[in-house]
Amino acid sequence: MGSLEPLIEKALSGDKRAIARLITLVENDEEKAREIIRRIYPHTGKAYVVGITGPPGSGKSTLLDKLIKLARNEGHRVGVIAIDPTSPFTGGALLGDRLRMQRHSTDPGVFIRSMATRGSLGGLAKATNDAIKILDASGYDLIFVETVGVGQVEVDIVKTADTVVLVTVPGLGDEVQAIKAGLMEVADIFAINKADREGVEMVYLELKMALEFEREKWKQLGWEPPIVETTAFTLKGVRPLWEAIKRHREYMESSGRLKERRTFRAREEVKTIIASTIAKKIEEMLARGEEGELIGEVVERKLDPYSAAQLVMETLKENLWG
Amino acid sequence: MGSLEPLIEKALSGDKRAIARLITLVENDEEKAREIIRRIYPHTGKAYVVGITGPPGSGKSTLLDKLIKLARNEGHRVGVIAIDPTSPFTGGALLGDRLRMQRHSTDPGVFIRSMATRGSLGGLAKATNDAIKILDASGYDLIFVETVGVGQVEVDIVKTADTVVLVTVPGLGDEVQAIKAGLMEVADIFAINKADREGVEMVYLELKMALEFEREKWKQLGWEPPIVETTAFTLKGVRPLWEAIKRHREYMESSGRLKERRTFRAREEVKTIIASTIAKKIEEMLARGEEGELIGEVVERKLDPYSAAQLVMETLKENLWG
Repeated sequence: MGSLEPLIEKALSGDKRAIARLITLVENDEEKAREIIRRIYPHTGKAYVVGITGPPGSGKSTLLDKLIKLARNEGHRVGVIAIDPTSPFTGGALLGDRLRMQRHSTDPGVFIRSMATRGSLGGLAKATNDAIKILDASGYDLIFVETVGVGQVEVDIVKTADTVVLVTVPGLGDEVQAIKAGLMEVADIFAINKADREGVEMVYLELKMALEFEREKWKQLGWEPPIVETTAFTLKGVRPLWEAIKRHREYMESSGRLKERRTFRAREEVKTIIASTIAKKIEEMLARGEEGELIGEVVERKLDPYSAAQLVMETLKENLWG
Repeated sequence: MGSLEPLIEKALSGDKRAIARLITLVENDEEKAREIIRRIYPHTGKAYVVGITGPPGSGKSTLLDKLIKLARNEGHRVGVIAIDPTSPFTGGALLGDRLRMQRHSTDPGVFIRSMATRGSLGGLAKATNDAIKILDASGYDLIFVETVGVGQVEVDIVKTADTVVLVTVPGLGDEVQAIKAGLMEVADIFAINKADREGVEMVYLELKMALEFEREKWKQLGWEPPIVETTAFTLKGVRPLWEAIKRHREYMESSGRLKERRTFRAREEVKTIIASTIAKKIEEMLARGEEGELIGEVVERKLDPYSAAQLVMETLKENLWG
C-alpha cells in the first residue's frame, strides 16, 4: 500500500501521468486494483457517467469528439473511456477516429483512455469500472464511456452508465440493424448521426415505432427517449444531442432514478469483481497438473465437462477461501 | 433423470423435435443441462466443428447457406448454431439472411438453431457448447457455429471450433476493419466474400501483409491460412472455401493439432460451466436482503466494491458448497 500512496496522491490532485499509471495498474494487477479502489473510493461518486454505444460505423467517436468540446465549453472536466473492439487480441489498438479524438489529450481538462480487456469473464467490465472511479476521484466530473454495442460484455458496460446514448446512422445492413434493435432497450437517448444522409426519415420512423411498443414503460418512468438528429461534422450539429443529455441528467437526478441506476451499477460491479477473481483462480488451477489431467479425461470422454467442473470447484473452494 | 430419458433416446435416434427440446432445456435449466450432457457425453466427439465469424455485413449467413448445400452433397449431416447478435435483449430474433438459411430446415439432414444468451458471464458460451454436444450425439457429423465476430463472448465461442473461418468483404468502415484485425489471430482460413466487388485486391493484400507478420508461427504449425475469394450467390462461388475447410480438417487430423484444440475447447468449456454456475448463485444472493444491503452501502460509499465482493464471496462459499 505504502508504495502506492504517493502515486494515488498525485492522481487525486489531477496529475495525468499518475492517473494513467493507476489505470494501468488496476487493469493488470488484481491486488493493486483492490488497494487503489479502496483508497480512492471515498473520493468517488461525484462524476456523471454517459455511455455512448452503437453499431460499427455509426460515427460514435466523431460525435464524442464534438461532445467533449461542448462539455469543455461549459466548464466540465471530461474523462473518456473508449472500449476498443479489437482489444481482446491487439491489446487495444486505437482506431482512426479515436486518434482524431486524441487531440483533446493536450487539454488538461480532458483525459482519454482506450481500454483493453485481459481475457474474458468480466475483465473488461471490471477494468472499466475501476477506471471510471479513478477519473471520478481525480476530479473529472463528466465521464464518457464509448463502446461498440455488439458484444454482450460491451453492452453490459454501457448500460451501467447514468445516461445511455444509442447512436445510429441511415443505411446500415441487415445484421447491423439487428444489433441496433438489440440495443434499443438500454438507450435513454437516440441519436441519428449523419442526419444529412439519405434515409434519415426512415430510421426516425423505425425508432419511433420501436418506442411505441414501450410507451407504457416510458410513461411510468416519466421519460420518453428523445430521438435527436446529428451531423457530427460541426459543433452545432451535435448540440441537440448535448442538450438531450443534459435534460436526461436533470430527469435522472430529480426523479430519483439516478440512485436506482447507480445501485444497479454497484451490483453489476460487485458481480464482475467476483467473476474475474474466480476466473483468474480457475485459470491458475487449470494450468496446474492435477486439474489439467481432468481436462484430458474430458477430451477422452472418460469424464463429462460438468463432472469435471464440479471437481475443479471443489479445489476452487480451497484455493479461494482455504 | 428418468423423465428425460425418453426425450434423450429420441434425440439420439435423430428426432429433430426431441433435439430442439433438449437444446431449449440446456439453455434454460442448469440442472437438466447437467443431466442431459452427462447422459449423452459418451456419444459425442464424432462431429467436426467449423466456426464462421466476421464483422457485421460480411455475408456470413449467405456463405453458410451455400456451405450447407455443398456439405449435404457430400453426405454430411449438418448442424448449424447461429449466434444471434441481438440475443442478449430480444432473446434471439432471426435476421433476414438467417431466415433464408432456414429453408434447409426441411432437409432431415440439416438442423439449424439460433442461440440466445441468458444474461452474460458464459451463459451463451455454455449453451453453445451444450448444443454442439447434443447435435454431435444426435448424429450431425459436421457442425457450423456462426458468430458476429465482435464481442468477446462471441469470439471466445468461435475460437473453440476445430476450424475457424474469418469472413470479410471489401469496403468496410474504419471500426469494422479494426474488428476484422482483432479476429486475425483466431482464423485458420480467410474468406473474402463478395469477391466480385471493387476493392478485393486491396483486402487480399491487407490480409497477406497481416499474415506475413505471423509467418514464423505458421511455419512452425505447418499450416499457412489460405485466403480464398468467394461470391456467395452461387455454389460454385463458395466451393473454394469448402475445399479449404476440408484441407484444414485433414491438416488438423494428421498433425495432431485437432487434439490440442479440443483440449483447449474442453478447458474453456469447464471454465464457462463454473463461471455460469457461480454467476447464477451470485444473482440469487444479491436478490436477497442481506447481500442487497451491502450494495446499498457501496452506493453510499460506506463500503468499497472490493470489500463488498469479499463479503459476498464468504456467503457464496456456503451457498455453493455448504
